[in-house]
Amino acid sequence: MSQLLGVAVLGAGHMGADHIRRLDRVVSGARVVAVADPDAARAEEAVAGRAGVTVHAEAEAALDVPGVEAVLIASPGEAHEEALLAAFARGLPVLCEKPMVPDPAGALRVVEAEAGLGRRLTQIGFMRRYDTEYARLKSLLDSGRLGRPLLLHCTHRNVSSPPYFTSAMLIDSSVSHEIDAARWLLGHEIDAVTVHRPRPSAGAPAGLSDPQFVVFETDRGALVDVEVFVNCGFGYQVRCEAVCEAGSARIGEDHTMVVTAAGGAREEVPADYLLRFADAYDRELRAWVDATRAGRVTGPSAWDGYAAAAVAEAGVRALESGTRTAVGLAPRPALYAEPH
Amino acid sequence: MSQLLGVAVLGAGHMGADHIRRLDRVVSGARVVAVADPDAARAEEAVAGRAGVTVHAEAEAALDVPGVEAVLIASPGEAHEEALLAAFARGLPVLCEKPMVPDPAGALRVVEAEAGLGRRLTQIGFMRRYDTEYARLKSLLDSGRLGRPLLLHCTHRNVSSPPYFTSAMLIDSSVSHEIDAARWLLGHEIDAVTVHRPRPSAGAPAGLSDPQFVVFETDRGALVDVEVFVNCGFGYQVRCEAVCEAGSARIGEDHTMVVTAAGGAREEVPADYLLRFADAYDRELRAWVDATRAGRVTGPSAWDGYAAAAVAEAGVRALESGTRTAVGLAPRPALYAEPH
Amino acid sequence: MSQLLGVAVLGAGHMGADHIRRLDRVVSGARVVAVADPDAARAEEAVAGRAGVTVHAEAEAALDVPGVEAVLIASPGEAHEEALLAAFARGLPVLCEKPMVPDPAGALRVVEAEAGLGRRLTQIGFMRRYDTEYARLKSLLDSGRLGRPLLLHCTHRNVSSPPYFTSAMLIDSSVSHEIDAARWLLGHEIDAVTVHRPRPSAGAPAGLSDPQFVVFETDRGALVDVEVFVNCGFGYQVRCEAVCEAGSARIGEDHTMVVTAAGGAREEVPADYLLRFADAYDRELRAWVDATRAGRVTGPSAWDGYAAAAVAEAGVRALESGTRTAVGLAPRPALYAEPH
Amino acid sequence: MSQLLGVAVLGAGHMGADHIRRLDRVVSGARVVAVADPDAARAEEAVAGRAGVTVHAEAEAALDVPGVEAVLIASPGEAHEEALLAAFARGLPVLCEKPMVPDPAGALRVVEAEAGLGRRLTQIGFMRRYDTEYARLKSLLDSGRLGRPLLLHCTHRNVSSPPYFTSAMLIDSSVSHEIDAARWLLGHEIDAVTVHRPRPSAGAPAGLSDPQFVVFETDRGALVDVEVFVNCGFGYQVRCEAVCEAGSARIGEDHTMVVTAAGGAREEVPADYLLRFADAYDRELRAWVDATRAGRVTGPSAWDGYAAAAVAEAGVRALESGTRTAVGLAPRPALYAEPH
Repeated sequence: MSQLLGVAVLGAGHMGADHIRRLDRVVSGARVVAVADPDAARAEEAVAGRAGVTVHAEAEAALDVPGVEAVLIASPGEAHEEALLAAFARGLPVLCEKPMVPDPAGALRVVEAEAGLGRRLTQIGFMRRYDTEYARLKSLLDSGRLGRPLLLHCTHRNVSSPPYFTSAMLIDSSVSHEIDAARWLLGHEIDAVTVHRPRPSAGAPAGLSDPQFVVFETDRGALVDVEVFVNCGFGYQVRCEAVCEAGSARIGEDHTMVVTAAGGAREEVPADYLLRFADAYDRELRAWVDATRAGRVTGPSAWDGYAAAAVAEAGVRALESGTRTAVGLAPRPALYAEPH
Repeated sequence: MSQLLGVAVLGAGHMGADHIRRLDRVVSGARVVAVADPDAARAEEAVAGRAGVTVHAEAEAALDVPGVEAVLIASPGEAHEEALLAAFARGLPVLCEKPMVPDPAGALRVVEAEAGLGRRLTQIGFMRRYDTEYARLKSLLDSGRLGRPLLLHCTHRNVSSPPYFTSAMLIDSSVSHEIDAARWLLGHEIDAVTVHRPRPSAGAPAGLSDPQFVVFETDRGALVDVEVFVNCGFGYQVRCEAVCEAGSARIGEDHTMVVTAAGGAREEVPADYLLRFADAYDRELRAWVDATRAGRVTGPSAWDGYAAAAVAEAGVRALESGTRTAVGLAPRPALYAEPH
Repeated sequence: MSQLLGVAVLGAGHMGADHIRRLDRVVSGARVVAVADPDAARAEEAVAGRAGVTVHAEAEAALDVPGVEAVLIASPGEAHEEALLAAFARGLPVLCEKPMVPDPAGALRVVEAEAGLGRRLTQIGFMRRYDTEYARLKSLLDSGRLGRPLLLHCTHRNVSSPPYFTSAMLIDSSVSHEIDAARWLLGHEIDAVTVHRPRPSAGAPAGLSDPQFVVFETDRGALVDVEVFVNCGFGYQVRCEAVCEAGSARIGEDHTMVVTAAGGAREEVPADYLLRFADAYDRELRAWVDATRAGRVTGPSAWDGYAAAAVAEAGVRALESGTRTAVGLAPRPALYAEPH
Repeated sequence: MSQLLGVAVLGAGHMGADHIRRLDRVVSGARVVAVADPDAARAEEAVAGRAGVTVHAEAEAALDVPGVEAVLIASPGEAHEEALLAAFARGLPVLCEKPMVPDPAGALRVVEAEAGLGRRLTQIGFMRRYDTEYARLKSLLDSGRLGRPLLLHCTHRNVSSPPYFTSAMLIDSSVSHEIDAARWLLGHEIDAVTVHRPRPSAGAPAGLSDPQFVVFETDRGALVDVEVFVNCGFGYQVRCEAVCEAGSARIGEDHTMVVTAAGGAREEVPADYLLRFADAYDRELRAWVDATRAGRVTGPSAWDGYAAAAVAEAGVRALESGTRTAVGLAPRPALYAEPH
């Protein structure tokens, strides 16, 4: 059988450690060669005595280990720009966790650097594109059977938010998933955003504007509305309904097991996104390894990472101003001419 | 506007009182003229001071009150044969609650008496035929869109059984609804029955064989299986799936309101049949009043009442013997030649 | 039994004729005494030879017929103000079809006239309040089990719009149902509205802005969003999800019969509102007849009629301006102090 | 990282080739070392030029290739007994596709041979145990939250049957999945079976008794009914409802995407078991590789393979005789004392 792909993993926190486990135990065709994290103990723990893996404090040192053929970036978002440029300098294909780069200016520098190379090296970790239900919805929309999409109704609910969560993070952390999903499902760019704020839930921490209701307008006339509610109390729910000229389609209804007992029929709602999207993470990584071994780059691009950052940043401004806010995107380089 | 139909109601128990209320308050076109019940206090309470209604201890006395044009029989099943024959003797149209007559021999005497009159006077109170969902399923099967029906899977669950309930009553009281519904939906007669008995639920009273699983065979080769579980603990559920040569159709899934809260999404299951089939009772009575005022007799016939009694009686024998038991039906009089 | 309530019906068009049928054939306790319509042939046809009903060209002539004890107004909205004031002058209880009065100024005059009488005479025909699913949702919200409501997501779809339909009518005719339903479900007043317009569907007539997406803000901080799409092509769908602090609840999911055949499982979507809300119309009329016979006035009030007109009018301005538009309500008279 | 597990694959037909692909491309931790098939061209095609894999006509030759540490048996059922005994002789762990051995006598010889070794080497390929929905149902039943299981209602439908299919194969090929699933979910043995035969569907090939309705009785008093319909025409459907003393739970309702278009809401039904259970096959193989590398044997045992064969054989006799037929199981060796 063919040679295993040698991977350097940057970042050994929660997400990095999970990807190391996935490369080792779940996905065939790759092996972890080097791990970098400023916290040496954390890196050693993630590696857990696996033979043949070196551990580094500096990202660039890991990239230079012999046998490294590809890079998985799971460090904090602030470190992504430097890591991406280092990978580009070495011609290494990259899977970069979201957000690609949190601020639009930095994200645009990454886009321009990759465009300067004249070829794609980057896949961004928008894992919803690898979820079975999203993939079925995308396939249905692309088939044209329902006609042109007019509206996308989205729901994004979490049981509770972590203590550090701010009102802006409902947009630039939570809704950023819907931003990419909407751009991908529709094949449109988003060019304006309005944020409506109901009175906060008594279940939300003091000062947090939760829930929020966000309305995006696309460059081809569709509307995308998102209820984001990160302290809903009852479960993790991600739903999407596409309303088209000839019909509508919904995913995320969670009817996998119906239990009827005292009080009614009920279905269990998953507790968090790792349960809901576990298979999507597996598929995402498998697709990246397969494509990389075949010398190809597929999936969400650096342009998608940049556009998500620019829309999220406009969304935070819309939240603060209370008014409709335009999104200003840079011109799209020819490298990304293909629809997302 | 036209004259109101004068009705005598026989029996002022739970069901009789409910029908009196319905004729008075819900259904237009009729008025109660006379009520009969051996328990005079109960009859007076059901009438509750309504003007122009006379109260009687004897059924025949009520039938002879001037202005009585039709009869609603809601007395205990043992009294039905005599009441039906008294109505026939006076040429009065009848709505008779189920069971028409509990024992097949008595039921056959009613059939023969009506056949001797040469015209139908009787509608039997199988109210499921007037339920919106059953009506949609019947209409779909009759349309032929799904081809010939092959199997009917039925579920009949109650929260708990009354104290007097016996193992035989799971068949001749509860499943009797499915017997009529299956004959009506399919347009077949039932000619054999097998009863499978799992170990009783710990939630059932000692000695009660609950749940039971009943398999009927029809004269045209279809199978009908019924789970009857009268101490299921959680609600009243009546479901039916018709499996046909070109597709299947299900009713009774109860998706009227979906509530998502801590622990999952849930739908409320109604507590009893009066909630589930409230509208069906209204429609049944309205259909009877409308048809009677127009001089017609529609709905389930005395033959349907007899067939239900004969199949239920065979079912009780099958329960006791543990073996496949044939149903022996008398020849069908020409009066009932129409499909049910 | 008690005396039948004598009703004058004003307007013998589609809706008036349907109400005449309902009073005659479906709902007990009332009889039609007089019908008024400028089109005499239409009025005669609606009465169809029923004995004891007089036919009139003028509304006031019908109100003055001996035996008239209550009025049902089903004439065009422009005629309502005069008809309501005529009923008030005679002290007659009224069931008035929606819109009570199309323009807010006229609606306010009706409110002030009734307030001047010092007692309620008017019930407005918002029939969704009588739908079983809406009633269950209202009851759940009122129970407090799910905590305070934060968001209401509404969908209102029709197969196709009539030829005379304008972009404004999506708001003041279609969405007016959601305006009343939201005010009633929440017990809030609406104080601002924004209308988002996606590119129109190719299935909509040229020039019609269809679909629209309307966001209402209430005086107690809740948001109500409504997708209105009157040329969706596939059926009549009315859905509502209430998102509360401790859970969410949805109605209108239409799971009454699931058919699985070549191509998938499917459920039939009803074709129009008369099918979907047939039972609600029956219940509405029954509730009005019962209350009127008992000397009470219940259900949606003239204030509700006024508030719906004022919000709809602001909605049309929001549609035209493309900006957030405040709703200015007059002070609420003490007569309507009760929550809707 | 650790050494890859060397696997010999016996049989390079449809299922064998799919497992070779899965070991190579999907599941980490293993590599194919040798493939055996009497049809050399088929074996070469399945291997498709992968380096380091040898191809053999004889199963035993493949087992003796250096580096073989485990065996995957995907040859026809008739060849399984000899292959299993050969693996036992070499002490090699085995994943054996179902049926383990088609006839109960041969299956019992395998059980006795493994019991003679004093340790388990065999995992049987009942992949439903690795399906997410089945696993959730199993977990719910094991939790005891719904009390003791009383009934299991199962549906097993295929679009159409292959040309060689016989009436007996509805039992010993199709229903054999439900036999294992029921034994596993309940933790009971099956000790009797009755087969009810409706008139065959017009959509079934002449002479095929399709659908069938099978009722199993367990040694602890539960009933399991199975509708098997292999020419249903519309899709692949596998559903299961467990009815317990305190509630019921259903899986297989397929609500992943709801599409509403002209004619109603619909959900797509998958076309075949490879679509429906694709993830289950992946999980099954991953679990086997993981356990084998850790020196453990888990999953369905040779006893489960034997019991399935014995119950299926009794089912075929019940089909032929039309009567209730007892299942005679040999005593269970101590090695398999654990519940399935």
